[in-house]
Amino acid sequence: MIGYVGIDIGGTNVVCGIVSENGDVLGMAKLATEAQGGFQHVTSRVAEAVRQLMATVPEVSCAAVGVGVPGFVDHERGIAVKAVNLGWDNIPLADELSRHLGLPVYINNDVRMYIYGEAVAGAGKNHRYVLGITLGTGIAAASVFNGELHYGSGFRAGELGHFGMPGIPYKCVCGLTGCLETIACANGIARQAREALAEGEPSVLGEWFSADTSGLTAADVTRAYDAGDPLAQRIMSHTGTMLARGLAPAISLTSPDVLVIGGGAAKAGDRLFGPMREELERTVHPMYMEGLTISVAHRLEDAGVVGSALYARSRV
Amino acid sequence: MIGYVGIDIGGTNVVCGIVSENGDVLGMAKLATEAQGGFQHVTSRVAEAVRQLMATVPEVSCAAVGVGVPGFVDHERGIAVKAVNLGWDNIPLADELSRHLGLPVYINNDVRMYIYGEAVAGAGKNHRYVLGITLGTGIAAASVFNGELHYGSGFRAGELGHFGMPGIPYKCVCGLTGCLETIACANGIARQAREALAEGEPSVLGEWFSADTSGLTAADVTRAYDAGDPLAQRIMSHTGTMLARGLAPAISLTSPDVLVIGGGAAKAGDRLFGPMREELERTVHPMYMEGLTISVAHRLEDAGVVGSALYARSRV
Repeated sequence: MIGYVGIDIGGTNVVCGIVSENGDVLGMAKLATEAQGGFQHVTSRVAEAVRQLMATVPEVSCAAVGVGVPGFVDHERGIAVKAVNLGWDNIPLADELSRHLGLPVYINNDVRMYIYGEAVAGAGKNHRYVLGITLGTGIAAASVFNGELHYGSGFRAGELGHFGMPGIPYKCVCGLTGCLETIACANGIARQAREALAEGEPSVLGEWFSADTSGLTAADVTRAYDAGDPLAQRIMSHTGTMLARGLAPAISLTSPDVLVIGGGAAKAGDRLFGPMREELERTVHPMYMEGLTISVAHRLEDAGVVGSALYARSRV
Repeated sequence: MIGYVGIDIGGTNVVCGIVSENGDVLGMAKLATEAQGGFQHVTSRVAEAVRQLMATVPEVSCAAVGVGVPGFVDHERGIAVKAVNLGWDNIPLADELSRHLGLPVYINNDVRMYIYGEAVAGAGKNHRYVLGITLGTGIAAASVFNGELHYGSGFRAGELGHFGMPGIPYKCVCGLTGCLETIACANGIARQAREALAEGEPSVLGEWFSADTSGLTAADVTRAYDAGDPLAQRIMSHTGTMLARGLAPAISLTSPDVLVIGGGAAKAGDRLFGPMREELERTVHPMYMEGLTISVAHRLEDAGVVGSALYARSRV
């Protein structure tokens, strides 16, 4: 049978998978990125892992390879233009990996691959206009309209985290103040809890992390929420509300059929998306909300790999 | 020579034009819409006007007709789904007009036609990703990506005027509070001036309209601005700032090469777009702003007609 290789390159780990034509994962492998070794080190390690993985499913003949890379990617020329957390600048990744594997390689931005996977084989399946966001260490967005990814000028489309918003006081690493990314992502949720605890706000989180809050994560805020903690509830409510305010113009402008939410913080589910939906219903015209499906990503763990593989299928 | 008919149907007037293949206007005619006479009355009047107009340029052989209609339009089936200010509900306009004229007729939303005209033959020419807004009696938006109009779910994409924004106190006709449309359009600018005068705010506009402010327009606010009037300056500054806040997420998400601004209030120029640009530069990440051209529409008077004609060219 025909298959496709999907690769999701992150700052810490690389995940590789062999994916069938209709999006089923036939095999997966994970390895440390070791970005500090340089991009040739990374590509030769990834190529070796892919070769080993392909050997485990000898009945599958892989036709092409898709790769999701963080940062700006020139998918047309196969260049990783800028990936800050990998230290990559204008890396000809597609050619390099193709040379190793002897297969056509297509690269793209990792968030686009994640949302493409959801659009084709996940929560966006059978929807014509898909708007997706990922809430991980940061927040990012991607759109798939009529089965086509939207790129924008300089392949830069998809940022929803970096514009100043009234009601957000934090300075962002990007240099602006009030960016949605400072609160509406896994890191942002944890950060709000840490700062509130530092200001002495009472919370069960203060008991759990009495000595040191540096290890506190969004998952802990979720746990505290479920324990009825008022601070955790306030954080989820505020984060959901601000997320809705950032999304409102995007929804009105593009009119998606479905809003897919992925990334680690999506596991907060209705604790976060309940307040988000309430604010959307309060501020977005009903004609957009009535037909809008809001769904957590179906493939929270492997959408990036599946998306990369199915993207390769679309390009080959 | 080959030409195309472009028709822009408004609540008050209909403008018809004969347009060459490269977007030059070869003849124009304007007539009252007389919407109260019903859609068959309107279409037979429009058809007659088009026939007369075609007779004035006998050297032009018209290949198709494009029509811009307000409200929701199903351009695939040629149906004017809902045009409140014309009283139209599910009108088979394309077939009806085609029967009258014996030519293929393609209809679409009027703002999309306006921005399409700008994208193909105006301020967006030679740009790949065009985001356009019109500031007229209301505010609306349309996008042309890679030469293709974006429609969204239910053909509803393009609304930028109806979502609640912090900092806008007004109730909107749509039922929401804080909609950008209540301030950022020709009517909204005039409205802000009228309400400030009613509250006794000093302004040269109070001298010009001492008896009755009902006739005050955005053009008067522009005149007052040029006379150094502080109220007019505050209104332009506030309107530009709020416009930028509505646009910021849209710019980050879609990353346009060019933002085209049309409609009557676009004539305010830098009085309005200076403060808008300042707020965009303060709140939108520089990577989006550096490459972004912001331009007033080149064809403020006839973009709708030209766009409709060139849209017909693209469909035929």
